[in-house]
Amino acid sequence: MTSELKLAALELAQRAKVAARELLRRDRRQLVLDAADEIEQREADILAANEMDLARAEGESLAFLDRLRLDGKRLRDMTAALREVAELPDPIGEVVESRTRPNGLRVERVRAPLGVVLMIYESRPNVTAEAAALCLRSGNAALLRGGSEALQTNASIASCFPQDAVQLVPPDRTILDELLQLSEHIDLCIPRGGLSLIRFIAERARVPVIKHYQGVCHLYVAADADLEMARRIAVNAKAQRPGVCNALECLLVDARAAAQALPRIAPALREAGVELRCDERALPLVQGGVAAMADDFGREFLDLKLAVAVVDGIEGALRHIARYGSRHTEAIVTGDARLAERFMNEVDASCVLWNASTRFNDGGELGLGAEIGISTSKLHAYGPMGLRELTCTRYVVRGDGQVRT
Amino acid sequence: MTSELKLAALELAQRAKVAARELLRRDRRQLVLDAADEIEQREADILAANEMDLARAEGESLAFLDRLRLDGKRLRDMTAALREVAELPDPIGEVVESRTRPNGLRVERVRAPLGVVLMIYESRPNVTAEAAALCLRSGNAALLRGGSEALQTNASIASCFPQDAVQLVPPDRTILDELLQLSEHIDLCIPRGGLSLIRFIAERARVPVIKHYQGVCHLYVAADADLEMARRIAVNAKAQRPGVCNALECLLVDARAAAQALPRIAPALREAGVELRCDERALPLVQGGVAAMADDFGREFLDLKLAVAVVDGIEGALRHIARYGSRHTEAIVTGDARLAERFMNEVDASCVLWNASTRFNDGGELGLGAEIGISTSKLHAYGPMGLRELTCTRYVVRGDGQVRT
Repeated sequence: MTSELKLAALELAQRAKVAARELLRRDRRQLVLDAADEIEQREADILAANEMDLARAEGESLAFLDRLRLDGKRLRDMTAALREVAELPDPIGEVVESRTRPNGLRVERVRAPLGVVLMIYESRPNVTAEAAALCLRSGNAALLRGGSEALQTNASIASCFPQDAVQLVPPDRTILDELLQLSEHIDLCIPRGGLSLIRFIAERARVPVIKHYQGVCHLYVAADADLEMARRIAVNAKAQRPGVCNALECLLVDARAAAQALPRIAPALREAGVELRCDERALPLVQGGVAAMADDFGREFLDLKLAVAVVDGIEGALRHIARYGSRHTEAIVTGDARLAERFMNEVDASCVLWNASTRFNDGGELGLGAEIGISTSKLHAYGPMGLRELTCTRYVVRGDGQVRT
Repeated sequence: MTSELKLAALELAQRAKVAARELLRRDRRQLVLDAADEIEQREADILAANEMDLARAEGESLAFLDRLRLDGKRLRDMTAALREVAELPDPIGEVVESRTRPNGLRVERVRAPLGVVLMIYESRPNVTAEAAALCLRSGNAALLRGGSEALQTNASIASCFPQDAVQLVPPDRTILDELLQLSEHIDLCIPRGGLSLIRFIAERARVPVIKHYQGVCHLYVAADADLEMARRIAVNAKAQRPGVCNALECLLVDARAAAQALPRIAPALREAGVELRCDERALPLVQGGVAAMADDFGREFLDLKLAVAVVDGIEGALRHIARYGSRHTEAIVTGDARLAERFMNEVDASCVLWNASTRFNDGGELGLGAEIGISTSKLHAYGPMGLRELTCTRYVVRGDGQVRT
């Protein structure tokens, strides 16, 4: 059994590797456009597959079922997203740098695909289509390992893409484990999800991994902050879409401003339906707040819940974030430019914001185009990962007989 | 014992992490200049430490002893290299991209240090000084793990750099193994060396690894190649400095040119002292050649030895390199631009060269400045790794109260 699964994993990876080499010579824009057409033509099949997944998921929460469900409108959004990816500028072959050396050598640094990308996720079925399109557009073969709850739907969507260049990995831990060992075949593994998934990957993988880990995002309201701005940003960062990784999870208020700030900010959050879990110093200042439990700090609620703490100056804020942050997104509200620059310089996160909502750490919002996720690994890509981050650069050198002296 | 070593590893890493945070606020150029001064002032101590290592290495080969040996001239070269690194442009804070979004958000992508870099190498003692300087200049704390044969020398050199920001790791596998687990503390591990070292790291590490693996570099002489140019490049690539990773290890000659090419190229290589290990088809065309053994292909000789094979057209060359290459450096000699472009496009290597010696895959020769090594990993840095490759980029966003709608 195990050795059969080992072979299955090796075969998936070998096929992907061959397909990746072939992609170098294909029209990758057209392949993505063709996949979008194919999804439209097979709408009935995809929806039928989705019905099967939904039937199997009976009894799950409404939110769960809603995330899993496809309909005509969602399929149209999916194909529109694919066509947008198709029309993004081709990253492959882009000359990133170019110089002529004194000896006449023409040196270029040029973008090339990574090769084979293994993506692991547990999300809505549209991630299958978008990840496949981003990989394909950037010349990479994709191995997609979605959640078992969406298996039929994902298989149906994946079959609209070129075979071998986009393959679905069966939701079996032995196969996944085996794939994670194949460093000769797989150039990058992107796990997108919670702690237990990321831990499993980190412990097993011999292939390179770029983690897309949770966002424990903080907003620090400095002593001098414009409280109306702080209120607006806090409510937006927490409540505009609480289930995503760039949503706010902890509000830090400077001790010198807390007595004014919390009575201004907290009611607006409560009004937006947010439960406020306060530390000892914040609790007396927050009407309707509840006492935080120890593990509410450093926690990704992904829900209408927010941890609140009072901190002593920027030092206190930096200490709190160094201890509890997840290197995702951190923000400050202040009118003091020097304070803001210090905060942004010393906080370790893929995106730091001054006087803006944490919700802006997103490929589209930062102006990068579609993204495959938000990396919390520093190497290669830190922050939103778009087409460019699915490539590497290599040196291409043209000469006329130069030798080294 | 083991738990003592575990604690020792953790303490090294924790000190490095604190030192890395402090480096953000230090004058990193000055720190490197100070280290160069310190090395000059302690010349006598360093040479005495080197004598101890040399005494312990008695009986080793002359080449081994020569690599290990320091003298006044070599120390002067070392401090000159350090001062060059000090004067390189500061990569930290560099704004790589900048845009203003329609909502007024100012988005910058800015370079920041990686944090803590663990470098593992088995080379001449000057690597200790240069790696320390490159890490420091780019704001990273360095954990340096050199070979045990140079322990006293390396310790003496490392002590000229700021304590904690540059630390020597004792040459003990348990400590190294423990460090490789500390993904909360160590941001990057760079192993530079042969297969067994790289394998050990790849199997154990949970910290991100950028391999600096061996160079099994090929030169493909196409059917139309200018044979005089091919001869010059082959001799330079193999014999100018055979002990380095960008030296040629295998000559591939197109079958259509072999009868003319090999009698032109081989004697020049033989004259340069190169032993030619030929496949069946090459052997009759190479006077003084010997039959290659199976493992001579894909082998990094690092010596005046060269594998030689006859291949069928570019397809044969590409197949051979796909099978035996190490993603380091690959070159073609041809007058045919389309053939050259196809070769450079389809060969998978950090540097591909047309009508030039493989010896040019080097940070200085490509115009990048000093390098910490040549990465054969695709992620983050592929090819020579200089100051810039010891940094990451993060998003810094400045607003005036923007929220997401």
